[in-house]
Amino acid sequence: MDWNEKYIAVDWGTTNRRAWLVDPSGNVSARFADNLGLMAVPPGGFEAAAADIRQQLGPWPMLLAGMVGSDQGWQQAPYVACPASAKMLADNIVWIDDNRSGIVPGVCQTSGHPDVMRGEEVQAIGAVNGSLVSPDAYICHPGTHAKWIRLERGQIAGFTTMMTGELFNLLRTGSILSPQMQSEAVDGDPFRAGLDAAFSGASLSSALFTVRAQYLLSNRPGDGASYASGLLIGSDVRAGLAQASPGEEIALIGRADLTRLYALAIESAGHGYRLIDGDRAFLAGIAAIVPYLEKERIS
Amino acid sequence: MDWNEKYIAVDWGTTNRRAWLVDPSGNVSARFADNLGLMAVPPGGFEAAAADIRQQLGPWPMLLAGMVGSDQGWQQAPYVACPASAKMLADNIVWIDDNRSGIVPGVCQTSGHPDVMRGEEVQAIGAVNGSLVSPDAYICHPGTHAKWIRLERGQIAGFTTMMTGELFNLLRTGSILSPQMQSEAVDGDPFRAGLDAAFSGASLSSALFTVRAQYLLSNRPGDGASYASGLLIGSDVRAGLAQASPGEEIALIGRADLTRLYALAIESAGHGYRLIDGDRAFLAGIAAIVPYLEKERIS
Repeated sequence: MDWNEKYIAVDWGTTNRRAWLVDPSGNVSARFADNLGLMAVPPGGFEAAAADIRQQLGPWPMLLAGMVGSDQGWQQAPYVACPASAKMLADNIVWIDDNRSGIVPGVCQTSGHPDVMRGEEVQAIGAVNGSLVSPDAYICHPGTHAKWIRLERGQIAGFTTMMTGELFNLLRTGSILSPQMQSEAVDGDPFRAGLDAAFSGASLSSALFTVRAQYLLSNRPGDGASYASGLLIGSDVRAGLAQASPGEEIALIGRADLTRLYALAIESAGHGYRLIDGDRAFLAGIAAIVPYLEKERIS
Repeated sequence: MDWNEKYIAVDWGTTNRRAWLVDPSGNVSARFADNLGLMAVPPGGFEAAAADIRQQLGPWPMLLAGMVGSDQGWQQAPYVACPASAKMLADNIVWIDDNRSGIVPGVCQTSGHPDVMRGEEVQAIGAVNGSLVSPDAYICHPGTHAKWIRLERGQIAGFTTMMTGELFNLLRTGSILSPQMQSEAVDGDPFRAGLDAAFSGASLSSALFTVRAQYLLSNRPGDGASYASGLLIGSDVRAGLAQASPGEEIALIGRADLTRLYALAIESAGHGYRLIDGDRAFLAGIAAIVPYLEKERIS
């Protein structure tokens, strides 16, 4: 495959996928997104699902990242260990589909606490490669499993996953707090009260129950979703910032609805932040990997 | 009703109920337990369910405590505010069923953080009334919503609820950690590693994710249930003990399977504990309330 002409970059997650057609100068000439995430692909259906991408964007070589490389994805791409660079990601790509498609490996942390990521590594590498952050940035990437990623000299030196989004969803859908958590989590007094409780070091488990107690004592619905969100995001940010240098600016990458609440939390804790567009970082990450492919896989 | 002859004490919770026939000297002459908790009683079915108790234990006056007094129970018994004594519980009993049955109110905390309990107040009052603890004891009551209760001069001065049991169940049944949490939580290295993480102040949300990461990196199932249990109980105990005097002995009331793990956590944190039988405390609590009824409700 010739990566010098055009290539397709695919961010293929659990619930959706996004694909871009990129030309040699890095410009995006076409793109699409759909809900055909891992959960929606039938067993054995990945080849057809990938063919569908080329149907829409053309017969180009393709680099894929995200959960598509997990054991439930198209093909498993084993994790590379921190510290991880663009070259290490390139060297450990799993080639499939007659070598026309490469799956970028995830990154794991084996020293310190055990941890894994899959997809965020491309955005983290891309943020520095695209000159969106310094080579020694500290990244906050909100999500179901939020990541705090330390870059050192442009490599992923270490990271920590927080189950913040998943805990919020579990509480909202299946807990005794569900009836008080049905509205959307938004900025306001309840969110900030949640932040305050988290920053004061309150126990998550007891502070969460005040949502229920408050409702029973006042018999008013309140805004438990925003309070719980403030509490969970505040705990997340508190733990994440404990690894930051004093006053260090945080690179915040992710969906606008989540980064807004995280930005508030980071600011409230006395740190600045820089908002990074996730798609732009992703494409810059793929662009950081491709040059190694040109050298090593000229066919 | 004449409370001087015999009476029936009922602890009626969400998933089961227990009833005892008590004679004047406080001896239990009959008892039974079944799964007819609140969730199993059909709408409008509480009178029949209560009649069923008298069918089994005789036509005696009856005191009921627990979720039976909630808005989903037989009849709502509003909370009394801390500090709460046996006399206050007696004075605020809700009489129903031709005054043959009294529902003991729950207790709420309105100064400090908002909190509520329903059922544990009888055991707490009973523990001191039955001389099982000192009038200034600090009680740990494990459960779905664990309670830490401060007694002062034999009254419930304040308390804190931890959603520990519910969080464990949510994670076990519906989270990405579920596959690694199917075995029973037991004492052992994983449980103690969870305790250590909690006592070191690790973020709950990131420490929990190591269960998943460890599994993905080792490809072995591990014992995520025990680790998560150690982490959650450790966080609970750490927050609870922050309100204890240095080295204070903790009164531990509850089900044997839970108190065992909490006892380990409390010991690991450098505190002693005294194990209190929950049923004995409950009956002593009802026995603390009854004398006020004799005085006030002689018919």
